[in-house]
Amino acid sequence: MKDFPGTPGTLTGLVLRLLQCLFAAASITSMATTSNFVSYTAFCYLIASMGLQVLWSFALAWLDAYALAKKKVIHNPVLVSLFLVGDWVTALLSLAAAASSAGITILFFRDLGSCKSVPDCPKYQLAVTLAFMSWVTVEVSSLIMFWILVAG
Amino acid sequence: MKDFPGTPGTLTGLVLRLLQCLFAAASITSMATTSNFVSYTAFCYLIASMGLQVLWSFALAWLDAYALAKKKVIHNPVLVSLFLVGDWVTALLSLAAAASSAGITILFFRDLGSCKSVPDCPKYQLAVTLAFMSWVTVEVSSLIMFWILVAG
Repeated sequence: MKDFPGTPGTLTGLVLRLLQCLFAAASITSMATTSNFVSYTAFCYLIASMGLQVLWSFALAWLDAYALAKKKVIHNPVLVSLFLVGDWVTALLSLAAAASSAGITILFFRDLGSCKSVPDCPKYQLAVTLAFMSWVTVEVSSLIMFWILVAG
Repeated sequence: MKDFPGTPGTLTGLVLRLLQCLFAAASITSMATTSNFVSYTAFCYLIASMGLQVLWSFALAWLDAYALAKKKVIHNPVLVSLFLVGDWVTALLSLAAAASSAGITILFFRDLGSCKSVPDCPKYQLAVTLAFMSWVTVEVSSLIMFWILVAG
């Protein structure tokens, strides 16, 4: 079970956590460098949610790196349940943030106008795409935790 | 395990499925009776997603009613896994639809203007609220299925 790809304390697990951090941080950067994201509640929520994702994934990446360096197995049911709940909550928040921002981006650049007329349009689109990629990687982690708990 | 509240084939399980149907159908009705929901991709997606939710929940409500009437236990792992995957997928779609519509509703009626100036505003808000309530009930079903599978 220790070598199952993506489980806590493995190299693939660490890579997955770093990818979550990377996508979430890149999404924040892309959104925060637009000129007027503060005017839109959904875009502010995206930044807050991705910020929480960075904190959570970074803490778990650090734990994975520690377990790898010390060659410790961190598969006890209490820890895995904690990881599962954390992944599940952050995944829900990330999906809600990505979906609400996607709703507004599609509204602005497809329903009501074109992407060409707004200079910041590619940045909004990139931020939303990266948020969805972050959500996908958290969802994968969440499913792996679920699998470990069930296979137990 | 058969009498655990909310499990398939119990009265609480049936009530939960009927609530999911009811909230999703009410959300569709509220959104579909607005004058120009067709102009917004997110609102159309809300209707599509809630439509799928109604179909899924109605099919499972029918199955629950059948199991109750015939006093059959429908707790075999294959069926529960199927229910779990179905609930999980429809819950994700419902959350994404509710969040994207909520993003646009907040944009229109808080970020860019007021609810008082648009006659259909309460209908949009009601549709989004009902979609979130439908998502909460599906999420509860999903957690119960997860619990049955883990407790096994």
